[in-house]
Amino acid sequence: MSILRKDPVSGGWVIMAEERSRRPPDLAPLASAAPNDHRLCPFCPGHEAVTAQEIYAVRNHGSNANDPGWSLRVIPNKYAVLHIEGELNRSGDGIYDTMNGVGAHEVVIETPQHDARMGQYGQARMEMLIRAYRDRSIDLHRDQRFKYVQIFRNYGQVAGALIDHPHSQIIALPIAPRWVKEELGNAREHFDYKERCLFCDIVNQELKDRSRIVFENQTMLAFTPFASKFPFETWILPKAHSHDFQFIADGDIAPLAEALRVTLYGIQMALEDPPFNFIIHGAPRLGPAANAGIQREYHWHIEIIPRVTRLAGFEWGTGFYINPTLPEKAADFLRQVLLEQPAPALAE
Amino acid sequence: MSILRKDPVSGGWVIMAEERSRRPPDLAPLASAAPNDHRLCPFCPGHEAVTAQEIYAVRNHGSNANDPGWSLRVIPNKYAVLHIEGELNRSGDGIYDTMNGVGAHEVVIETPQHDARMGQYGQARMEMLIRAYRDRSIDLHRDQRFKYVQIFRNYGQVAGALIDHPHSQIIALPIAPRWVKEELGNAREHFDYKERCLFCDIVNQELKDRSRIVFENQTMLAFTPFASKFPFETWILPKAHSHDFQFIADGDIAPLAEALRVTLYGIQMALEDPPFNFIIHGAPRLGPAANAGIQREYHWHIEIIPRVTRLAGFEWGTGFYINPTLPEKAADFLRQVLLEQPAPALAE
Repeated sequence: MSILRKDPVSGGWVIMAEERSRRPPDLAPLASAAPNDHRLCPFCPGHEAVTAQEIYAVRNHGSNANDPGWSLRVIPNKYAVLHIEGELNRSGDGIYDTMNGVGAHEVVIETPQHDARMGQYGQARMEMLIRAYRDRSIDLHRDQRFKYVQIFRNYGQVAGALIDHPHSQIIALPIAPRWVKEELGNAREHFDYKERCLFCDIVNQELKDRSRIVFENQTMLAFTPFASKFPFETWILPKAHSHDFQFIADGDIAPLAEALRVTLYGIQMALEDPPFNFIIHGAPRLGPAANAGIQREYHWHIEIIPRVTRLAGFEWGTGFYINPTLPEKAADFLRQVLLEQPAPALAE
Repeated sequence: MSILRKDPVSGGWVIMAEERSRRPPDLAPLASAAPNDHRLCPFCPGHEAVTAQEIYAVRNHGSNANDPGWSLRVIPNKYAVLHIEGELNRSGDGIYDTMNGVGAHEVVIETPQHDARMGQYGQARMEMLIRAYRDRSIDLHRDQRFKYVQIFRNYGQVAGALIDHPHSQIIALPIAPRWVKEELGNAREHFDYKERCLFCDIVNQELKDRSRIVFENQTMLAFTPFASKFPFETWILPKAHSHDFQFIADGDIAPLAEALRVTLYGIQMALEDPPFNFIIHGAPRLGPAANAGIQREYHWHIEIIPRVTRLAGFEWGTGFYINPTLPEKAADFLRQVLLEQPAPALAE
C-alpha cells in the first residue's frame, strides 16, 4: 500500500509507492531501453487476459468485454501508485503529515495499433479518446474521497512512457496537486481585483494579439503561452469560460479533438517526433464554499510540453526556467509547418 | 539581451534567453553527447584565454590572473542567461509583465583536473569550493538590483551539465524563484503559528528520530527528507538557526564541506556514480520589512537530487511526485555504504 507524505517546506504531497520499487542497489542510472516488443505488449489485442478487467471500452458490436474487438480500452493500472480500496486516513508525527494512498490509477489504451503515433491520430480516434477522458473523469468524481482527477499523456521514454503502446493515464487523488493550488491562488487574486476570469482575459488578449496562436476553431484556442517555460510549449483551452474539463459539452468534444490533433501533429512535424507530456489542468473539488469560487475563477486547459531541450536537467534541478525559443517564434514556426503540411483528419 | 516574462497562471518568471537558441528546426530531441575532449576543454589550465577574465581565483603564490597556476577559478559564463549591464526595467502589456534580463551568471571551475569527480573531492578542495560560493554570494549581494543569488551544481549530462570539466554555476536574479516564495510562505505560516523556525523544528525532529540521518557532525546535518520527492534525495543544513548561506561563519565552512563531501561520496558509491543536481536554498532579499521576517523564519539548506529514476519524465510533466524508495531505506543504505567504505578526506 502506498502512502502520501507532505513536505512541510514546499507544502507539496509526495506519493511513496514502494511497490514500484526495486531494491536500492538496483536503482540504475537513467538508461534508454529497447522499444517494447509488440508480441509481448500487454496492451495489444489478444493479450487482454494479462491486464486487469476493463473499466470502460469502445467495442465492435457483439464483442465481449475483455476480449479483442475493441477500439479503446480503460483498465486499472497494474502498477498503480494509489489504490481504490479503503477509507482515507490521516495521521501526524510531530511536524510531519501522512495520508494513506487511497485513489485510483487507470490506463487508457488509446488504440489497438501498437505502433500508432498520437501526432497522427485522425479526428474520430481523438474524439473517442477525449470522450473516454471525460467519461472516466465524471465517474471518478462520483467518489467523494477524491479531490482531483489528473489526466495526462507521456509520449516517448524520455517523457516517462515505460510501455510504447499508445496510452494515457488517469490518477484520482485524495489531495489537489501543488500546482493546482498555485494556479487557483493566482486566478483568485486576478478575479478579486478585476472581477474577471484570468484565463478569459488571456484568451481575449491572445485573440487580439494573434502572434502566439497556433490553431483556433470556433470554440477552442491553441497558443504558445507568453511565458512559455519550454520551447514549443502549447496550451489549449476553451474560448468561453468553463471551469472544469469534466463538464465539457458534447458539442465541444469535436473542436477540442481537432485542436489537440492539429497541435500534436504540428509539434511532431516541426520537431521530428519529439517526446512530450501533456496534462489536462482541470479544477479540484475542495468543498462547497471553495467550489463556488473555483467555478467562476478557474478555467480548464491542456498544457503540452515537448521534451526537446537538453537544458531540461537544469530546470528540473533548480526550479526556474530558461527558454531559448521565444513563444512567438515557436507559434510562427508551427503555423508555417501546418500551412505547408496540414494535419490529416481521416487517419486512423 | 535576454528578457524575463511572468506567467500570470503559475506566478513564475521565465528567462527568455534567445542568445542560447538554435533556430527552431535545429532543436533536436534529447541526445547524449560524447564526453568532452579535455584538449578542447575551455576550463582546463592553459586555456584561460578562451574564457572571459576571471572574477575570483585561488592561485599558487606568484601566478598571474588568467594564467595557469590556479586551484579554483570563477569566470563570467560565456553563454550567460542574464547580463550584468543596465538598469532594471519593468514593462506591462495588458495582463503580461516583462522585465529585462539584468543579472549575473558565473561559472565556478572547481578544480584544474578535467576528470575529477565531485563525489571524491578531498576536504581541502571542498572547503575551497564552499568558500568561493560564499565569497561570490556576498559580492553579488552588494548589487542592489539582485533579489536572489542561486548557486547550483549539475553533475552529468542527464543533469544538465554541458561541459564535463567540474564546474558549478551562480546566477544572480532580479526576482526570487517561485519555489523560494513557496518555502517562505510555509515557513512564515509555521512561525506565525508556533513562533519557531520550521527548519529548526525539522532538525530537532530528525535528530530525535534518527531514521533519516545520513551524516552529521557538530554543526551540520545531512538527512533524507520525510517527503523526499526523489529516491536518495538528501538535504544538508546547519543545526543552529541561520537564515542565509552567505552569512556562514568561517568556522562552519569545514563542517559543511565535510557533510557535503561525505554525502556526495555516499551517493556516488551507493548509486554507481549517478548524475545529480544540487542547489543551495538561501534567503532572498525582498526589502527591509520582509527581510526582518525572513531572518527568523527562513533557514538555508542544500538540496541534493540524484537522477536515478526513469519516472522522472512523469514527475516533470505532471507536477507531482512519486517516489519508489522510502527515505528511511535510502538513509539506511547510505549509512551502510559509508560504514563499509568511508569517504577519503585527503583526496585531491
